Amino acid sequence: MDAGLIAGLLSVTPGWAGLEETIGLEPDDTAMILAEAWRLGEDLLDPMAARADEEGCRIENGRLLTPEGYAEAFARLGADGWLAADLPESVGGQGLPTTLHAAASLGFEGAAMPFMMLAGSTRAAAHCLLAAAPDLAESWAPKLASGEWAATICISEPDAGSDVGRIRAKAEDRGDHWRITGQKCWISFGDQDMTSRIGHLCLARTGAPQEGTRGLTLFLVPDVLDDGSRNAIRLERIEEKLGLHGSPTCVLSFEGAEAQMLGEAGRGLPTLFRMIELMRLQTGCQGAGIALRSAALARRYAAERLQGGRPDAPPVPILAHPDVRRQLLDIESRAALLVALVLEAAVAADQARAGDPAAELRQAFLLPLAKNFGGEGAFETASGAVQVLGGAGYTREWPAERYLRDARIITIYEGTTGMQAQDFLVRRLLKDGGQSLGAFLQAARAELAEAPPGAEQATAILDRFEALARRLMASDASMAERLGQADGYLRAGYAALTALLATRLARVSDRGAAWARYRLHFADAELYAAETACALAPDLLAEAG
Amino acid sequence: MDAGLIAGLLSVTPGWAGLEETIGLEPDDTAMILAEAWRLGEDLLDPMAARADEEGCRIENGRLLTPEGYAEAFARLGADGWLAADLPESVGGQGLPTTLHAAASLGFEGAAMPFMMLAGSTRAAAHCLLAAAPDLAESWAPKLASGEWAATICISEPDAGSDVGRIRAKAEDRGDHWRITGQKCWISFGDQDMTSRIGHLCLARTGAPQEGTRGLTLFLVPDVLDDGSRNAIRLERIEEKLGLHGSPTCVLSFEGAEAQMLGEAGRGLPTLFRMIELMRLQTGCQGAGIALRSAALARRYAAERLQGGRPDAPPVPILAHPDVRRQLLDIESRAALLVALVLEAAVAADQARAGDPAAELRQAFLLPLAKNFGGEGAFETASGAVQVLGGAGYTREWPAERYLRDARIITIYEGTTGMQAQDFLVRRLLKDGGQSLGAFLQAARAELAEAPPGAEQATAILDRFEALARRLMASDASMAERLGQADGYLRAGYAALTALLATRLARVSDRGAAWARYRLHFADAELYAAETACALAPDLLAEAG
Repeated sequence: MDAGLIAGLLSVTPGWAGLEETIGLEPDDTAMILAEAWRLGEDLLDPMAARADEEGCRIENGRLLTPEGYAEAFARLGADGWLAADLPESVGGQGLPTTLHAAASLGFEGAAMPFMMLAGSTRAAAHCLLAAAPDLAESWAPKLASGEWAATICISEPDAGSDVGRIRAKAEDRGDHWRITGQKCWISFGDQDMTSRIGHLCLARTGAPQEGTRGLTLFLVPDVLDDGSRNAIRLERIEEKLGLHGSPTCVLSFEGAEAQMLGEAGRGLPTLFRMIELMRLQTGCQGAGIALRSAALARRYAAERLQGGRPDAPPVPILAHPDVRRQLLDIESRAALLVALVLEAAVAADQARAGDPAAELRQAFLLPLAKNFGGEGAFETASGAVQVLGGAGYTREWPAERYLRDARIITIYEGTTGMQAQDFLVRRLLKDGGQSLGAFLQAARAELAEAPPGAEQATAILDRFEALARRLMASDASMAERLGQADGYLRAGYAALTALLATRLARVSDRGAAWARYRLHFADAELYAAETACALAPDLLAEAG
Repeated sequence: MDAGLIAGLLSVTPGWAGLEETIGLEPDDTAMILAEAWRLGEDLLDPMAARADEEGCRIENGRLLTPEGYAEAFARLGADGWLAADLPESVGGQGLPTTLHAAASLGFEGAAMPFMMLAGSTRAAAHCLLAAAPDLAESWAPKLASGEWAATICISEPDAGSDVGRIRAKAEDRGDHWRITGQKCWISFGDQDMTSRIGHLCLARTGAPQEGTRGLTLFLVPDVLDDGSRNAIRLERIEEKLGLHGSPTCVLSFEGAEAQMLGEAGRGLPTLFRMIELMRLQTGCQGAGIALRSAALARRYAAERLQGGRPDAPPVPILAHPDVRRQLLDIESRAALLVALVLEAAVAADQARAGDPAAELRQAFLLPLAKNFGGEGAFETASGAVQVLGGAGYTREWPAERYLRDARIITIYEGTTGMQAQDFLVRRLLKDGGQSLGAFLQAARAELAEAPPGAEQATAILDRFEALARRLMASDASMAERLGQADGYLRAGYAALTALLATRLARVSDRGAAWARYRLHFADAELYAAETACALAPDLLAEAG
């Protein structure tokens, strides 16, 4: 499970060939780039991440100290162009497709997801600045791309998590700048000792509380001002967490900190949306990356660990046992599918950025799925690897338990499963009149019309999913009742997408063909479970209060 | 989710009323005993366990130091009669049914599962000694029951985990005693500073290696000899683990340690079986206990945490949101079902001990399910609680992440999921000619014939499960192919059992009625997924190597 699989799946992702041509790459170049990125993850990031998990982050004299090797690794990512591969060359990027970045990042994310949190917010911030404040981007983006500076995203407050509309941090107009006052929490790398400057992209209130999200504006708040003095931002504490020990989760107090407005007043959330989109795609990559590593670990252990077999003969590798093979088939096929998933979402993002309206709609359909099932899949494959390793998997001598701890955050941050499901049902189906769904189905059916292996099964699953979606659209249930079905609908969408993507697995290798058959076999039961969830009697939820 | 629910579910578990009568308890007495046990867990064990997880165990001067409060808490459990409630009074027990002990232990296990590992092995060892070596039991059992001494179980070796037949530790006959030499691993509380003596129940080889398990014999190896000198046992190290920080997992070297044989030579595994049965039932209790606490935590948080609602009104408890209710319904119903599950298995154990052959068969059917789904259910409900708590759930400020870490071991130790599935299919179905299955189905159908709420749905599920089981029995597939279906068959068994037990939930309270409807609604899809797994093309597993 490595760069070769990623390159293979990329080559069968519709739309990739066109993007590849646009930038003048041959498939061999792509494969070479991916192999090199994978090696960088393997050689540089993986050993660092294992140590960082032990060492953790700490606060000394009010400043945050990151684990050994972080500063050098971040500079290296910058120097190699991986912090902003998909930024325009004019601002320090390489002008590559987001897809290529996503594909390459799987090796980095799997090796050192906690460390990569800073790379993710830095790159997303550069994109956001470029769109919202080209003048600021001119000075900031190249520094972010090179890794000399970094950026964070500051949204949540103690009483405003999923409920962004209750943000209370205040922004006051001081003529040529603004001053931000308030507390922000859950800020990954809210402080660090890896770069000479940090730009906080911070949502604060310029309007009245009752305006909700419409009173929010986005600001850039640097930790160091242009004159070299420190801005009024205090690091309050870092969270002690289940995992992500290599990623400091900070609480920051903005105490009249100097800031620049980004975009228009009252348009903070829409302005931030490009950044959020990129970070949601990254969470999918985190999940696929961890799943790949979990699968590789499980296979390696199963091939090496000797146990069982006839008592009068030497013990056999546990891979010889049917149930271990079943477990591996599940873990590996799940991991490969997640790779196909994030590549699909990334291509849609590139095509949307290039102005393709159908791709824009498909991206809207795909992103909640990539975000959520990247997270669930990573947790499941990591837990599966723990199980294959048995007692060894439960110990800290093997990284399976670290993957499990790290993976558990993915369905929580950047929008919980509940928020993704609500988004998927309400915004991507009910409010858009089925347009996103239609764009997805049209592209899926066009692909299956070319009769890849498994096309018939996949088409049957898509038909059932469409029928479910149409029933939900036509239903006269109350909004509360519909929201009770959102999770089921999200899972139905993933079962349908699974069926489509599984046909791609069959096209990359013999093992991929087995994975495809396995996942298609189960997609039916997964869709059935989702249909069952959507058919839950609504009065049950009312009673559950 | 507390003692009241446990008492309610106990009262609707068939067979319990008879056991209760035998020992002369009224239902009110039972409820009072359970409430008291629950309070002990709440007041004494829960705060201790939270600290113990932080503090962990350590080795100093070759001896193991346990967390603060452990020695006192163990002595208290002994003094209150909870270390050996179901031992005969003649050897220091209270002569209570195992069921009452299991029901009471849910509060202890949920509060402090790692600590309770020692209570579990101590109690199981007392039972084992009583059956295998009454003379030794005379001196040992009362000391184990009072908590002055403790016991462990030593089976695994570095190259003999699931594959017990490859155990190499040697036993040499020295006339009036034996000497054991070899390394044993994964020994919970292999050393500790809580009791004045530790008895290791240790499997060692008296026969030739090629005899496999038939060359194994069980021994009692005390850490301190009768003359007060230390036996030749060295504590090598303890494992660093994902969870269970409050339970030291030891590697011990037996270096010619003095030992007494238990039971007959070459009958080590059968002799140990009573101990293993009790410890498997305990793992189910661990799972149900953690699930109860996870559910209680999720509800408390959902009722208190304010978030969302109309922007122009104060925020609402997140329990008001339909998707949060759905999550709670899933977590709570799952936890309640696990309680019903372990009570069912415990009653069968008591009835079997009293000589009821049908109960013996039912116990054989139920135990792998209680063991495995106790573990999976605990992990799922703990993970569900993390999700309800969101970012807070990922931090160490709340115990959800601790429950998750602790729960992850349950499907690994005392026989992995793979081993349970193999046992459930091969020994409990194919080799016994469907007798265990028949005993389960007969009792289940008799219960459903009394038409509890949901009986029709449950009966339909049972019929489908029986049809699947009969197909598997009649199949002419190879053993390798059958073993590839074992996991699916295990899950099918649990779906069927779920349907039966769900009807009991409906009989305890209004909320229980909602849980019952919810779980019955999904039992259909769960069985369908299991049927799908059993129908997986066998050539796929062959290819997956």
